Amino acid sequence: MNDQAQQDQYFMQKALDEAKLALKKGEIPIGAVVVAQGQIIARAHNMTEALTDVTAHAEMQAITSAAHFIGGKYLKNCVLYVTIEPCQMCAGALYWSQIDEVVYGARDQQRGCITMGTTLHPKTKFRGGIKEAEAGQLLVDFFKQRRK
Amino acid sequence: MNDQAQQDQYFMQKALDEAKLALKKGEIPIGAVVVAQGQIIARAHNMTEALTDVTAHAEMQAITSAAHFIGGKYLKNCVLYVTIEPCQMCAGALYWSQIDEVVYGARDQQRGCITMGTTLHPKTKFRGGIKEAEAGQLLVDFFKQRRK
Repeated sequence: MNDQAQQDQYFMQKALDEAKLALKKGEIPIGAVVVAQGQIIARAHNMTEALTDVTAHAEMQAITSAAHFIGGKYLKNCVLYVTIEPCQMCAGALYWSQIDEVVYGARDQQRGCITMGTTLHPKTKFRGGIKEAEAGQLLVDFFKQRRK
Repeated sequence: MNDQAQQDQYFMQKALDEAKLALKKGEIPIGAVVVAQGQIIARAHNMTEALTDVTAHAEMQAITSAAHFIGGKYLKNCVLYVTIEPCQMCAGALYWSQIDEVVYGARDQQRGCITMGTTLHPKTKFRGGIKEAEAGQLLVDFFKQRRK
């Protein structure tokens, strides 16, 4: 693996660790980390149940947290790793953040920003498929368990 | 004016009052209120500067605040009045909230959810043009002042 691939594996695993924390708490298991200059500056997972708030997706928490760390609104030199492709809301927030790059794990074919046609900032690079099997399986397990 | 038109004028004025509060604080002058059973249950304005957070749009604050008031995530019997057409992020959040209705003041031709093609929840009614001149003028004045 080259450096980029190694970094992708490393940081997506950290996002998956966040997703697993969410799962333990009965939250939809999606996690995210924000990376700047090779270091994690924010970690977050879905908290919609705990906060009783539909806006509390992993990405939203991570964007807010990273901005607080930086002391500025914009995440221009940052990369967001998130286990599942962002939804319209989160992609819309990422648009405003002017983040440098978004890397997702598994696609959300139904409600993800690709299917929904949400526009990211023209400066934002966007790619996915990192540890997608593991990221997707967490969601499958969660919804299987919830149907019981 | 019929009852609906009177209510629209009344609640949009409350949203405009919020927008004017934002203006006084140097924030982008956009305001919102959430109405349930004829009563305002949440008021909010843009706080992106004060919170150093691109996600702190009026609608996002209002959704979170209304959910806290209700004690539940979903705003199924609520109406959001917002002075400017919501962006992708806010429309995406409104999608998750399953809100009954969204009423905006002025269009945002560039970055509003109509131009951007953001999908609202199929149950959500969506209309605008209430006090649009006043809502739009607040933004024009703000950006004119900021360019000085």
